[in-house]
Amino acid sequence: MHATSRGAEFELIERIRLRVASRADVLLGIGDDAALLRVPEGHDLVVATDTLNAGVHFPHDTVPSAIGWKALAVNLSDLAAMAARPAWCTLSLSLPHADEAWLDGFVEGFLRLAAQHGIALVGGDTTRGPLSVCVTAHGLVERGGGLRRDAARSGDDIWVTGTLGDAAAALAQLQAGGVADPALRARLDRPEPRVGFGMALASLAHACIDVSDGLLQDLGHVCRASGVGAEVDVDRLPASPALVARSSGDTLRGEQACGGDDYELCFTALPQAADAIAAITAANGTPATRIGRIVGGSGVRALRADRSEWQPPRSGYAHFA
Amino acid sequence: MHATSRGAEFELIERIRLRVASRADVLLGIGDDAALLRVPEGHDLVVATDTLNAGVHFPHDTVPSAIGWKALAVNLSDLAAMAARPAWCTLSLSLPHADEAWLDGFVEGFLRLAAQHGIALVGGDTTRGPLSVCVTAHGLVERGGGLRRDAARSGDDIWVTGTLGDAAAALAQLQAGGVADPALRARLDRPEPRVGFGMALASLAHACIDVSDGLLQDLGHVCRASGVGAEVDVDRLPASPALVARSSGDTLRGEQACGGDDYELCFTALPQAADAIAAITAANGTPATRIGRIVGGSGVRALRADRSEWQPPRSGYAHFA
Repeated sequence: MHATSRGAEFELIERIRLRVASRADVLLGIGDDAALLRVPEGHDLVVATDTLNAGVHFPHDTVPSAIGWKALAVNLSDLAAMAARPAWCTLSLSLPHADEAWLDGFVEGFLRLAAQHGIALVGGDTTRGPLSVCVTAHGLVERGGGLRRDAARSGDDIWVTGTLGDAAAALAQLQAGGVADPALRARLDRPEPRVGFGMALASLAHACIDVSDGLLQDLGHVCRASGVGAEVDVDRLPASPALVARSSGDTLRGEQACGGDDYELCFTALPQAADAIAAITAANGTPATRIGRIVGGSGVRALRADRSEWQPPRSGYAHFA
Repeated sequence: MHATSRGAEFELIERIRLRVASRADVLLGIGDDAALLRVPEGHDLVVATDTLNAGVHFPHDTVPSAIGWKALAVNLSDLAAMAARPAWCTLSLSLPHADEAWLDGFVEGFLRLAAQHGIALVGGDTTRGPLSVCVTAHGLVERGGGLRRDAARSGDDIWVTGTLGDAAAALAQLQAGGVADPALRARLDRPEPRVGFGMALASLAHACIDVSDGLLQDLGHVCRASGVGAEVDVDRLPASPALVARSSGDTLRGEQACGGDDYELCFTALPQAADAIAAITAANGTPATRIGRIVGGSGVRALRADRSEWQPPRSGYAHFA
C-alpha cells in the first residue's frame, strides 16, 4: 500500500487532454467529474467495454502505440458488430509508474485510431497499478436499430469479413519462442475494426458478432442466442497470404476456425442479400466471404469440402482476450 | 503469457447476469457485443469512469462485498457531483483466477448499492489479471443541466455534505499497522455516494465536485476551473464522533482538509440559497455544512477561527484513489 502521486496523475491527464479532438455533441469532456454528452434525437445508445491486461491480452513486448491502438480497436469492433456509429469513449489506464515516453506512444496509437473513426475521448482516469487498459466506447444507432446476436434465422448465409487466423498464428510463433512474421504480428497488434462495414450492415444483416474468441466459439454464441444451428465450410475460410505461407492442413484450419483476436465481423443474412453485400465489400475495400449457412437445430458443425465433419484439435488454441 | 480460460469467464458472466435487475430503457443488456440503451428525449448523458486497483485504491484485506460496493460508489459519486440521475453501468473485472465465492461477495456488494440507486448493470467483461475493477457509470440530466466545476462565483458560500476525514483516519490506522476503528473503516470501505443530494442541487448550486482526493485539493480544481479563489474555515469542517474520539488538532484538521476517499459533495451556492439547502439536508437525512466562501483571485486558503492561515502538514496525507 502506498501513497499515490496525484500530481503525476494530473500531469498525465493534462498530457492526454491537450491532444484530444472534440465533437460538437461533447458538452463537457475531460476535466470534470464526468463527461456531459448530447445524444441526438431518434437515436439509441450503444455501449461496449473491454479491458486489456499486459501478458494476458497482449504480449509484454508490445510497443505502447499498439497497446493504445488495440485497446480502442477491440471496443470499436464491438460497436461495429452492433452496426453503431462511434461517438465517444473513456479510457481508464493503470500504469506501474508515470512514464511520459510510454504514455506518448500509447496516446498516439489510441488517438490515431480514434481520429480514423471520429470517436472523441471524453474522460477517464489514470491510476497506479499493473499495466491495464479499460476502454468504454459509445456509439449511436437509429432508434430501434442495432444488430444483435439473437436474430439469425434458418436459411441465412453466414459471412465473415477479411481473413481469419493471422493473430492466432502470430501468437503461436511467439509462444514457440520465435519472432512472429511481421504481417501476422501486425494483425495481432493492430486489428482493424470493421466499423464502416458494420454500419453498412445495419438494415441488411440478421445477426452479427465480432470474432474475438475464435470463429466457431463466437458463432456458437449467435446460435445459442438465436435458437438455431450452423454449418461452417471450414475449407472455405478466408486466409491471408502470410498465413497460407506459414500454415497448412489442420494447423491452418485450427488457426482460422478457433484462433482469437481477429476482430473480423461474422454475420448472417438472407441468400438474396449477396449482391448488396458485394457492394458493401467494394465500397469498404474489405472482402467478405460466405462461409456457411444457418440451419435448424443447435450447435455449430465444421464441415470439410467432402461434407465430412472436421474436429478442432483437442489442445485448443491459445489466445489472449 | 497464458492461454485464457474463456469457459470460466462465461460462467462468471452468467453468474452475474442472473442476479442483475433491469430497466425498461435497457433494450439489450449483458450478453451481446454491446448494450443498447434508450436515452429519454430532452435529456443529456453523463458518463464517469473510475478504476480501483488492489493495494492502491483499497487495502488488500478488504472484503469482496466492500470492493464491489466501493467500485460502484466512487462512480455514483461522480454522477452525484454532476447532479445526474443514475441509469446504467458497465463493469470490467480483472481477477487473478476464477473464484466463485469471491465473485458472489463482490457482486452482492455491487448490486446492493446498484439497487439502492436504481442503476442497471448492462455489460462489461471479466478478464484474468491482477485484481482490478473498472466501472463506467451513466446518468441522465435534463438537457442543458448538469453541475460543473467551472461555475463557482465570487461571493458564493462553500458547502460540504456529511463529514470529512474518516476514510483518511482509517487508512492512517491501517498504515500504522493497527486495526482501524470500525466506524472509520466503514467509511473507507463503503462510502455513501450523495446521489439524492446531488440531484437536488441541480438548479441550486453553482459548482460542485466530489471530495475524493482531499477537500483543499478538490476545491482547488473548482477554483482553477472557475477562475476564482476560496477561503475555507478549517476549524468549522464537519467531523464524525468517531473521528473526534481519535484525532485532534492538526492531525484532525489534516485528515479533514487533506484526506481523500470521503466522497462527500463540495458545492458552492449563493448565500440566499441557505434555506433551500437546509431543506435538502432535511429531505435527504444528510447534513451539509457551510465551510467557507468563494473570493476573487485564485487559490485556496485555509483559515483558522482567528483568521490566521493554516498550513497542511508537509508530509501530506497518504490515501488511495
